[in-house]
Order: sequence, then structure tokens, then C-alpha cells
Amino acid sequence: MSLHNQRIVLASRPAAEPTLENWRLEDAPVPELAEAQVLVKHHYLSLDPYMRGRMNDGKSYAQPQPLNEVMIGGTVGEVVASRHPKFAPGDSVVGMGGWQLYSVADASVPGLLRKVDTRHVPLSAYLGAVGMPGATAWVGLNHIIEPKAGETVVVSAASGAVGSAVGQLAKAKGCRAVGIAGGADKCRYVVEELGFDACIDYKAHGDLKALLRALKDACPQGIDGYFENVGGVILDAVMLRMNAFGRIAFCGMIAGYNGEPIPMANPSLILVNRLKLQGFIVSEHMSLWPQALAELGGMVAQGQLKYRESVADGLAAAPEAFLGLLKGRNFGKQLVKLA
Amino acid sequence: MSLHNQRIVLASRPAAEPTLENWRLEDAPVPELAEAQVLVKHHYLSLDPYMRGRMNDGKSYAQPQPLNEVMIGGTVGEVVASRHPKFAPGDSVVGMGGWQLYSVADASVPGLLRKVDTRHVPLSAYLGAVGMPGATAWVGLNHIIEPKAGETVVVSAASGAVGSAVGQLAKAKGCRAVGIAGGADKCRYVVEELGFDACIDYKAHGDLKALLRALKDACPQGIDGYFENVGGVILDAVMLRMNAFGRIAFCGMIAGYNGEPIPMANPSLILVNRLKLQGFIVSEHMSLWPQALAELGGMVAQGQLKYRESVADGLAAAPEAFLGLLKGRNFGKQLVKLA
Repeated sequence: MSLHNQRIVLASRPAAEPTLENWRLEDAPVPELAEAQVLVKHHYLSLDPYMRGRMNDGKSYAQPQPLNEVMIGGTVGEVVASRHPKFAPGDSVVGMGGWQLYSVADASVPGLLRKVDTRHVPLSAYLGAVGMPGATAWVGLNHIIEPKAGETVVVSAASGAVGSAVGQLAKAKGCRAVGIAGGADKCRYVVEELGFDACIDYKAHGDLKALLRALKDACPQGIDGYFENVGGVILDAVMLRMNAFGRIAFCGMIAGYNGEPIPMANPSLILVNRLKLQGFIVSEHMSLWPQALAELGGMVAQGQLKYRESVADGLAAAPEAFLGLLKGRNFGKQLVKLA
Repeated sequence: MSLHNQRIVLASRPAAEPTLENWRLEDAPVPELAEAQVLVKHHYLSLDPYMRGRMNDGKSYAQPQPLNEVMIGGTVGEVVASRHPKFAPGDSVVGMGGWQLYSVADASVPGLLRKVDTRHVPLSAYLGAVGMPGATAWVGLNHIIEPKAGETVVVSAASGAVGSAVGQLAKAKGCRAVGIAGGADKCRYVVEELGFDACIDYKAHGDLKALLRALKDACPQGIDGYFENVGGVILDAVMLRMNAFGRIAFCGMIAGYNGEPIPMANPSLILVNRLKLQGFIVSEHMSLWPQALAELGGMVAQGQLKYRESVADGLAAAPEAFLGLLKGRNFGKQLVKLA
């Protein structure tokens, strides 16, 4: 079997905003399989905001992405060769194959490679609604926000892979779900397709005052839970509208990835409103994933959990698609089609 | 019985920093007791930072202090007349009598007036280590920070009524306890008398950089729990030294009481370090008070929980003592001796 691999490596670390020059596309060999290894041909690569954090060298929750090595990333694909008894050619699998066409995984490491069932759930959904983003929504909502029926839950980046699941899960729990998204198209989609009760276009409400008015209209009973994907002025506005004993799950802060920390305007609201703010990384809650993915998969199969994908075509398109994701140009889960 | 009462009312709301002109001392009658009422002669009035928040008219967790009415405040004293069967003249009681010499309490309202035992615990301690400040320390430490033996707990305003209890309770749990206080005298007291492992003089470490160095020295294993009494640059510095999964209990933010919100420099650390930040008001956790006060009272009686008091003499001295408290001029629990 003579296979040709291509991969994208991190060529340099961004000084501030990343540019296409930070990556390099290169040819690479497909190694011989050792005992227990599995060769996977990738169908889709997932692009996610966390990758921006990995590009920096500073202290963060994860190791920095090493220079000149293949960019990390979640992938779905099919097994093309296997030296592990539990995997056979043709199996659909999800793993962390990285920004490349093929990857080799040691299938004896628990959780590294997972077989998935594509009869009722499309393969690509295992990178989105039934994958890491879906699990992120599920863990943050159920284990930090813990909403009760009748409460109001707000989520930023509401049309994205995580945000769209947060709102639909909140609705399924009997909550009022309010999204924040960039642009009228995304807001319409969030309300009309996903079934949120309201969605605020932050581009049409550019400052704190306008956001506060919009939040007051969209959340007449105040805000009990906030799923934070963005940071900055949106966080400041939401905090001013939080009810007593509100909970904020910190999942992402895209606004702060480029180096300059963005302050929180009024932390004394934490005391005044007895808020709980908690950051979490979904990969540190692996024990919750089976329950989360089973529930999310069931909802997708039954059409109760909808999602949208932005698909870039071919590995070479990944860097530009990723830069677009950081600027909110994607609409739904950002994928790269590799086969 | 002809008794003469004096009281201090809020005459005006402070524009920024409060001044003596915001209060007025006036004579007042002692009313006849109605059925179930008890007349208490106050021995001590408690002065606490939360009173500053009540002086404002804005949205906060509590009703604003009404103008021209007696300032609220905790008091200990003795019953001088009673029309309730459970209270008799001579009983030592703790309640919310306000800034005045006498108060009338409806003893049929549960919790409004509480008899206390002064055989092993001095009466004044029921306003401090075995009162609201002690309970505040106990609730924040045990129910938000939840420290494990071997962890490092930092507390600001460490020589104060709340902070001194936080550190001693943390030590009793096998933690490293590190205080932050203003001035060499307070720091020496915190370490030598209260038994903290270290104490940082924030006046000798005036900027973020100096505070970070001092925290690194005092907390070589990082910080797992922080009991926040102050806000501002101290919070920013502590957040930069928090370990993954650290917990911050927000109990007070003296720095922000005068109107201008003080931002938090780097909220993305909440995500990066998966921190939990939670505000609380001890009066909303009344179900925990019996256990807290029993434990605190036992520790005081056995000399395991030490405290210090700053006692101003006479009702007329209360406003100036309160302004001093806001500036950190007190050393230990601030009281006013009324009888």
C-alpha cells in the first residue's frame, strides 16, 4: 500500500492575530504500522477556537502546539489498515488525527480512537453536535449552569457548534433560550431553525448601552445562566443583567486570544448578585462524555438537535477557514473536507 | 422606667467617599413595649464593611439604608425589660439593634434576638469570631473554597474579623494559610499571634509586579483558594498565581464601594485555570449558622481561634470609627462600646 500523506504544521507563532504565514503545508510519509496501530484516512477535520490558544507559547491549560509538528485537531474518517483486533478496514472512527490526510493511532490507548455508528448520525456530526462541541455544551450547561425549567439561559456565539447545542438543550429543559450572534442571518437561523426564543445581533448593538437594552428586551425576567464563548463587552453587558444566584460557564474567550487581556468591567457584580463564574475544559470531564454523547446522539437521530456546518474543501483550505472561524465568518460548525 | 435613647441616623448619601456629615446623632424616645417585645440595652455595636454598601441607593443585594432612620448594625447587650416569656431581664442577647443605645425587638420573630452564653465566650465575641464575621469566614471557606489539607489558602484583610478567622480555620484543616494585610504590625500579628504561615504587607508591595513576587515567595505551591475581601490589584495578582481548579470566594470588595467599578484585569484566567469564582452573603446561608457558630464558639472557648478588637468609646464615636474601618485603620474587629 503506497499512500501519500499531506499535513499542515505550525511554522511560527503569531505575534498577535495569526496569519496564513503561521502554517506550512508539507508532504509526509505514511509510516508502517506497528503492533496495535491503526491507519485512518480522514474524511473531515474539525476546526475549533481552542486551537488558537495552542498556537501561543504562554501558560495555558494545554501544552502549546509544538513548532514544525502537525497541528492538532479532531478528525473523523475510516480505518484503512489495522494491526489491532478491535478495528477493521471500513470502520468509521473519530479521533485526534490532526491537520493531515492520514493518521496513525495506537488503538491500545483507551479513548484515542473511537468507533462510531453512522446509521442514524452522519459521520461529520461526531465532530460537532455529537462530538467535542456538543459535549462542551452539555457539560457546561448541566454541570455548571444547572438550569431549572423557567429560567433564562443566554449563550454567545449562538449559531456555532457549541452555542447552538447549548440553546437547544436549554429549551429541552424548559428554559427560555436567548442567543447572541453576529449578523441578521445568524440570528434568524438561531430563532427560526434552532428554536431559540430570541437572538441578539451583537453587530447591530455595538456598545454596552445598546447591548444592555437588547438584553433587557430579550430577557424580561433577567438572566439566570450564561454560557460564555466570547468575553469582552458582551460579558460585561450580560453580567449587568444577571439575576441573583446566576451562573456563568466560561468555555471560550475568543476576544482575548490575541495577547491583550480584556478586562471584566465590574467584578463586584459577582458579590452584589452572588454569581458563580466557572471555567471548564471539556476534556477534563471525560467521565461525563458517554452520557453526554448518548443523549446528544439520540437527539440528533430524532431531529431534536439541529446543527449547521461550514465546510471548507481540501486540507490546503484549513488555515484560511480557521482564520475565518476566529473572526466569526463561519456559520455553524467549521469543518474541512479531506476525502 | 424612664430611659433616654440616643441614635445615629443616615442624614445623606455619600457622593463618593463618605464623610462625618453623612450621619446625625439625635435623641430618641424609648417606646412602651408591646406584647412579645423585648427592650435591649446595647453593650457593643458592630461596625462592618457591608454598611458602606447600604449607604448607597443603587442596586445591591440588600435594601439601601433609609435616610433619617437609625443605621442598621449588629449589637450585643442585655435585656432590661421583656414582654416575651423566653427572655428575662439580665439575659445576654445578640441582635440587629442598630447604631443606638437601646432597641426594641419583636422576640416572636425567629432569629431576630438570640440568647448567648457568656461563661466561656466574651459577649463582644458574638459580634466577631462567634458572630456574623466568623460565620462569614466559615461559610466562604467550607462551602465555596472547600480546601483540602495541604492546599494553600490566601485571604485578604487578614487581620480583620473575617480574615483572621478564615486563616485560622484553614490552618485547622491542614492548609497553608497566607494573609494579606496593610502594614508590618498587622502582618506580624497575623503570623505570630494568629499562626498564619506568611503574611504579605500590601502597603510595602504597591504594584502588581511586587505583589506577584511576594505571592510567589509566600505561596511556593501556588494558590488553591482565595477569600476575597478587597478587590482591585490584589485580586488581579492572586488570580495570576491561582492553580488549576482554584476557588475564589467573593465576600467583600471594599475597593469598589465608592462608586467607580474596579475592573478585573484578566478574566480569561477563569477559563485558562478553570477557576470557580463565587459571591456569597452570609445572611443567605442561615441554615449553616448553628453549625458554624457552635464550631467557632468551641474554638474560641478553647483558645484555638484568636481575635483582636478595636473598640471605639461611645455612640458618638461610631461614624469616625466606621470611616477608619473603610480605610483599614482598625486592627481586628471594629466595635463601639455603648455601655
